Amino acid sequence: MKKRRKKLTGKDNDVKHNVGAFPGELHYSGDVTGNDIKITLIQFNETEYTEEVFYDVKSMHAAEKPDLIKWINVEGIHRVDLIEEMGKIYGIHPLTQEDIVHVDSRPKFEEYSRYVVAILQMLYFESSVQSEHLGIVLFTDTVISFQEPRGGDAFDIVRNRLRECKGRVRKMGPDYLAYVLIDAVVDHYFFVIEKIGEKIEHLDDEILTNPGKSVMVEIHELKREVLLARKLIWPAREMVMNMMRSETDLISETHTIYLRDVHDHINRVTDTIEQYRETLNSIMEVHLSNNANKMNEVMKALTVISAIFIPVTFIAGVYGMNFENMPELKSPYGYWITIGIMLTIMIGMGFYFKRKRWW
Amino acid sequence: MKKRRKKLTGKDNDVKHNVGAFPGELHYSGDVTGNDIKITLIQFNETEYTEEVFYDVKSMHAAEKPDLIKWINVEGIHRVDLIEEMGKIYGIHPLTQEDIVHVDSRPKFEEYSRYVVAILQMLYFESSVQSEHLGIVLFTDTVISFQEPRGGDAFDIVRNRLRECKGRVRKMGPDYLAYVLIDAVVDHYFFVIEKIGEKIEHLDDEILTNPGKSVMVEIHELKREVLLARKLIWPAREMVMNMMRSETDLISETHTIYLRDVHDHINRVTDTIEQYRETLNSIMEVHLSNNANKMNEVMKALTVISAIFIPVTFIAGVYGMNFENMPELKSPYGYWITIGIMLTIMIGMGFYFKRKRWW
Amino acid sequence: MKKRRKKLTGKDNDVKHNVGAFPGELHYSGDVTGNDIKITLIQFNETEYTEEVFYDVKSMHAAEKPDLIKWINVEGIHRVDLIEEMGKIYGIHPLTQEDIVHVDSRPKFEEYSRYVVAILQMLYFESSVQSEHLGIVLFTDTVISFQEPRGGDAFDIVRNRLRECKGRVRKMGPDYLAYVLIDAVVDHYFFVIEKIGEKIEHLDDEILTNPGKSVMVEIHELKREVLLARKLIWPAREMVMNMMRSETDLISETHTIYLRDVHDHINRVTDTIEQYRETLNSIMEVHLSNNANKMNEVMKALTVISAIFIPVTFIAGVYGMNFENMPELKSPYGYWITIGIMLTIMIGMGFYFKRKRWW
Amino acid sequence: MKKRRKKLTGKDNDVKHNVGAFPGELHYSGDVTGNDIKITLIQFNETEYTEEVFYDVKSMHAAEKPDLIKWINVEGIHRVDLIEEMGKIYGIHPLTQEDIVHVDSRPKFEEYSRYVVAILQMLYFESSVQSEHLGIVLFTDTVISFQEPRGGDAFDIVRNRLRECKGRVRKMGPDYLAYVLIDAVVDHYFFVIEKIGEKIEHLDDEILTNPGKSVMVEIHELKREVLLARKLIWPAREMVMNMMRSETDLISETHTIYLRDVHDHINRVTDTIEQYRETLNSIMEVHLSNNANKMNEVMKALTVISAIFIPVTFIAGVYGMNFENMPELKSPYGYWITIGIMLTIMIGMGFYFKRKRWW
Amino acid sequence: MKKRRKKLTGKDNDVKHNVGAFPGELHYSGDVTGNDIKITLIQFNETEYTEEVFYDVKSMHAAEKPDLIKWINVEGIHRVDLIEEMGKIYGIHPLTQEDIVHVDSRPKFEEYSRYVVAILQMLYFESSVQSEHLGIVLFTDTVISFQEPRGGDAFDIVRNRLRECKGRVRKMGPDYLAYVLIDAVVDHYFFVIEKIGEKIEHLDDEILTNPGKSVMVEIHELKREVLLARKLIWPAREMVMNMMRSETDLISETHTIYLRDVHDHINRVTDTIEQYRETLNSIMEVHLSNNANKMNEVMKALTVISAIFIPVTFIAGVYGMNFENMPELKSPYGYWITIGIMLTIMIGMGFYFKRKRWW
Repeated sequence: MKKRRKKLTGKDNDVKHNVGAFPGELHYSGDVTGNDIKITLIQFNETEYTEEVFYDVKSMHAAEKPDLIKWINVEGIHRVDLIEEMGKIYGIHPLTQEDIVHVDSRPKFEEYSRYVVAILQMLYFESSVQSEHLGIVLFTDTVISFQEPRGGDAFDIVRNRLRECKGRVRKMGPDYLAYVLIDAVVDHYFFVIEKIGEKIEHLDDEILTNPGKSVMVEIHELKREVLLARKLIWPAREMVMNMMRSETDLISETHTIYLRDVHDHINRVTDTIEQYRETLNSIMEVHLSNNANKMNEVMKALTVISAIFIPVTFIAGVYGMNFENMPELKSPYGYWITIGIMLTIMIGMGFYFKRKRWW
Repeated sequence: MKKRRKKLTGKDNDVKHNVGAFPGELHYSGDVTGNDIKITLIQFNETEYTEEVFYDVKSMHAAEKPDLIKWINVEGIHRVDLIEEMGKIYGIHPLTQEDIVHVDSRPKFEEYSRYVVAILQMLYFESSVQSEHLGIVLFTDTVISFQEPRGGDAFDIVRNRLRECKGRVRKMGPDYLAYVLIDAVVDHYFFVIEKIGEKIEHLDDEILTNPGKSVMVEIHELKREVLLARKLIWPAREMVMNMMRSETDLISETHTIYLRDVHDHINRVTDTIEQYRETLNSIMEVHLSNNANKMNEVMKALTVISAIFIPVTFIAGVYGMNFENMPELKSPYGYWITIGIMLTIMIGMGFYFKRKRWW
Repeated sequence: MKKRRKKLTGKDNDVKHNVGAFPGELHYSGDVTGNDIKITLIQFNETEYTEEVFYDVKSMHAAEKPDLIKWINVEGIHRVDLIEEMGKIYGIHPLTQEDIVHVDSRPKFEEYSRYVVAILQMLYFESSVQSEHLGIVLFTDTVISFQEPRGGDAFDIVRNRLRECKGRVRKMGPDYLAYVLIDAVVDHYFFVIEKIGEKIEHLDDEILTNPGKSVMVEIHELKREVLLARKLIWPAREMVMNMMRSETDLISETHTIYLRDVHDHINRVTDTIEQYRETLNSIMEVHLSNNANKMNEVMKALTVISAIFIPVTFIAGVYGMNFENMPELKSPYGYWITIGIMLTIMIGMGFYFKRKRWW
Repeated sequence: MKKRRKKLTGKDNDVKHNVGAFPGELHYSGDVTGNDIKITLIQFNETEYTEEVFYDVKSMHAAEKPDLIKWINVEGIHRVDLIEEMGKIYGIHPLTQEDIVHVDSRPKFEEYSRYVVAILQMLYFESSVQSEHLGIVLFTDTVISFQEPRGGDAFDIVRNRLRECKGRVRKMGPDYLAYVLIDAVVDHYFFVIEKIGEKIEHLDDEILTNPGKSVMVEIHELKREVLLARKLIWPAREMVMNMMRSETDLISETHTIYLRDVHDHINRVTDTIEQYRETLNSIMEVHLSNNANKMNEVMKALTVISAIFIPVTFIAGVYGMNFENMPELKSPYGYWITIGIMLTIMIGMGFYFKRKRWW
Repeated sequence: MKKRRKKLTGKDNDVKHNVGAFPGELHYSGDVTGNDIKITLIQFNETEYTEEVFYDVKSMHAAEKPDLIKWINVEGIHRVDLIEEMGKIYGIHPLTQEDIVHVDSRPKFEEYSRYVVAILQMLYFESSVQSEHLGIVLFTDTVISFQEPRGGDAFDIVRNRLRECKGRVRKMGPDYLAYVLIDAVVDHYFFVIEKIGEKIEHLDDEILTNPGKSVMVEIHELKREVLLARKLIWPAREMVMNMMRSETDLISETHTIYLRDVHDHINRVTDTIEQYRETLNSIMEVHLSNNANKMNEVMKALTVISAIFIPVTFIAGVYGMNFENMPELKSPYGYWITIGIMLTIMIGMGFYFKRKRWW
């Protein structure tokens, strides 16, 4: 039930935040508690690479080296004080801070004078579609990514590549790094719709072979998953589009083609989501129709039985009457003739119904 | 019933107003009566803060101080004469006055030479979606907000902040104040859809566990709420969009990012409303299908009983006939054989139906 | 039937006109016959006001005074010769003339070198949605409105205001007068959707309390009304939008805000129409579901009766058999035991079905 | 079946053409055979008018007079060689030639350096919606219209007007003539939707009074007609829109208002088609609901009969048992009391069911 | 099952690629295995034509002649190393390489400094809609087309034309060749929808004459085909649109009309797909309604039989009771009167039901 409540009505603190909060004041709206945070500072250029973990902002900030590209990954957007401290040091606008800590923020891209920020949702699939809030802030030589504490595995691949110096990412600027992070998130979207797709396939096979009783509920659950995925992914498309069209100097012109690529990927995901929605509707129609057909078959068969026996039972009833003067009863062949008539009627009706394909 | 009538056909005076009124002539179209009004004049800058309540326009106007930012909150748009008086003093265009007193006006943003005006609907949820009309007029150094008399609590939080000098609002211009008021209204939208979302969740749980008889009616009522909320919120999005794009000098360029934020919030609300609409449809389909299935189960079980007993009842009828010449009747084992045949038929049919999963 | 035929296939002469007519040739396509026409010439400025009725164009034209604003209301677009005469005198383009006399023209706004013209549909509600064709031609100092002869009451309010010199209309130019006329028409749209809304409300109450047999037909009729209203009102929105955006000198820049207001009104009407469409669908779903439920209840109850009595009837049948050797029959308590078994079976089944909520 | 196959899968040669043909190579894709062609050359100005019929291109071309406006109507797009010859003489681009002979081309307007071309579909209604392919090519002083051979009657009215020198068409340029031809085609669209509208009206009356068994099939057929009409007419709208916006010198600025008029006509047709689609859906819903209701009534009545007689039949069965010791049987009033109980039960159930409105 | 899984969840390696791959790193995502590749180098100008087959890139590249237009057809996008080699030699951007080898890429058109690339899907129909990935890269004097190895027949026609020097293709530049290749692909779309159309026609005939049990499943399968075709074709439209609007020098201005033509073709395909979708829905509605009607007929007939016999069976039961004092039993005509009453009841009910059209 919890899982479902989350989907429709957002995380718990949501209401309080929205109503009680003043614009620009920070209230974490997710459901993570505790004070654990972890700040990973990765500094690199084509030749150097260092990776350090800190548990407070100041010491991390002190460790930054001027000539390297810096990627600061902050796990712990539930610690509002931390975000505010980061905000002060790096000059992040309070509205941006709000978007970062508010886990239900809509994906968006915004330009500020000193930085640009992309807010988006990481999706993963654990029996249902789950989302995790992400904020990626891009400065001239620094990328800061903000995550919920449990997160992080989506970026592992990026980290590995940086370490191993594979790919172009070490050679290119922080905007390319930001793109790589967004690309990693969008790649996960495929994962999620793939999972939903498999479930739909499974359902599709099931309704044709051996539909269980809960098919409608499963369709309903899958529809909810699809609706949720659509709601979360759809604005990401707009976000990337705005990023592409942005005229900021922070994203170099030549890297726009990479964003175009991400945009195409999201388009493919949303195309697929639409296809799934319609497929689910079609599956539901088949299922309902199959159900109705099966029911009809049963009812027809059963009713045919009644229809065949009721008339002959009536005849039996007639000759079971106790009138004194019933000449047929005395006829020595009366019984056999009656039985014969009954069988004739039954067989006749059976044939008639058969010919009319009533069973 | 009253509640519902309101939703579909607007407040009572609506028709009369629309048909009988001449453009630019004021007729209050809400359902508040009485003459009670209340004008709150709040004047502040970064250091000063005064808050006074007046019950007529002139004395309020006399109390204004030139160097402070003024927020005039007028509770009482049902007193048309009051609005006209305000209009004359502050130079508010008759069409704007009309939009302010006409409680069914569509949310909109309009620019006039001396001011800009935002008309919108405050939503709250008291067993159903209720709306309250609001007008916010922004001058160079003054913000006038017009409300229905029962209203006001949505702005309490703003007032508290001003008093306590929390947040940025005391340091910034009247355009920021106007933004804060609009933001407070939009925050309430989340409240309302949250409530609807909870009801939908409740319904969703209910149909899977213990659906009552009135589920369809509840779905219908929720659909109406969702449709109403959509109708009221949708144009607000356009309103904020127009406000963002406006080139008026009254809204400083640097504050546009705040409006962008409000716009994102409304987008999130409308995304959620669409999700709710589809979820309600899906819930309805599950409910109808469950209903049909349950009915089918019952009918099948009952019909199977008939089908099993009717043939054997016929046999009993046959041997209940009173023919004189029925040799079986005289056989000492006739009865037991017949009983045996009957049981065989019944058990056979029972197995057959079982195997065919007819019950 | 007549009423309905009108809605879907247009007025009777429609086809003949469309196919046989040549562009720019006038054929009245409405269903008014007779030769009665009435031309009302109202001339006014801020101080003067004259109102004269004429029955031919020439004498009317002769009565025009150069310095006054002139409003010529022509009732009688069925008299094509009249429109042609007007066209020659005032320089109205043949295509405009055609739009004026063709009662099924789509609402539109068009600019010509010497005038602008607004074609629209007046709606009223007499047991169903009815429309009346209107053309408003605006010259530098003259407004000509063309109506079908039965029309006119929508403009009475405007006439009264002019006479009584109330409102701004006497002080302002002919473009304001044209706006006031269009506003009067759009105000009537609210009237019509209000009526439809009341009918929908009525239906909504009815289906929950005491649905009649004709509910589906009523829903169907209301859907037709809503579809018709939508078809007629929708293009009016575009018309006003074009009028707003027009760069003609005939409409002064400062009056555009009035058109913006009309545009908002039409938007509100179309929002409401969409809401009605969806509400009707929802009502229909509730109604169909209620119907099915009620039917299911009945069938279940009736079938339960059969299911309870059929097995015990079989037992009775068994002991009604006439075998000579049926030991139970001779037992002194056989009858009572049998009755007991029967009652046990019946009560047992009754309880079982009850527990399973089958009735 | 043939008729229908045409609708969904295009004319027979379609596939072969599409797959086998190379761009710019001509293959007639319609189903007309034979070699009959007919070229009508009409030359006119305000004072002169000549009309000649030719059966080959060269002699026709030789008969052209330089100072007159020329309208060449070619009946016979199935003769690809003819079109190629025309193309060479008049400088028509191969792609245009292809669009002309390919009878399933989408309506479109294209500008070439020396001419503009409008491709559209003439619709007529012969028990179902039929289409005929048309191409209208406009040069500086010549209009060439290409038709399938059976066609032509749509243009008769234009020809008559030219002959009789009625209307403006003789006084104006070839662009006006082209407009008049397109207008004649669009006027026919009204004809077709009028016919469909009548059929829908008929169906609507029928379902309320005396629905036949084939109502669903008729609705289905009408939906197909409406879908086909929409598919054919919709792109024509875009075509006229492109024509209006075209900046070609061949269409004089002052004639754009005529195209605007045609555009409005098509808009009206498409509005009506949408209305029809929704009306058909509504009719279907009413029909299905009526059907279900009627069925329900029957089933209820029949089941009530069973429910009333089954319990009393059971009682009769009890007293038909042959137990030796059944004291009631010996009671002199037993029979009458039993009959009384039976009647009481039957009447009681009858009343109960009646009160519950079960029949 | 395999076939279906492919449709919804993409080819097998898809997930791995998406999640594990880094942007710009190549992983073939199709299901072709083996190392077979085939590179066809066609070089031509208006007078010359050579065609050679190679099995490695270098020898092919060495065979290129500077003055001819070159068409390199690479069959074997599963060999990532090959694509990388081609990329190095011809300067193809890694993202383009990725789009080429990733067989589920969305159709798109992209401009790079040295070339433009069109990614699209070839469709063919082998019992279901199948797709094949294609990439067409256009340089100043070279066209490179990348295919999956099994492909190729779609381009046969182009090759034949080049060989036979038919059509314009030999005389025009490489951009025309690229257009011709795209046109060949789009022509195949007609093929596919034609096939689907035929199946829909077949189904449409079938449901009216002799619907099988699997009609719903067939409708479902066809819907899936239509959805898949739509998903694959829809973005191709955008692709061609982008190609038309592109301002690259590689596509000469005068060839844009050819792309306009392709665009029209795709539009026609998508129009038809929409028509199919709605037709399938309509067919389904007819089918479901027919099914329900047939069932209703059967149930009514069977229930009428019960309703007629149950009352008379009751009467028989009454006179089968064994009360000692039942005067009717002794009446000599009692039996005949009873039989008469029974027949009267049965015939009466029969007539009554007949008149009410219950059977």
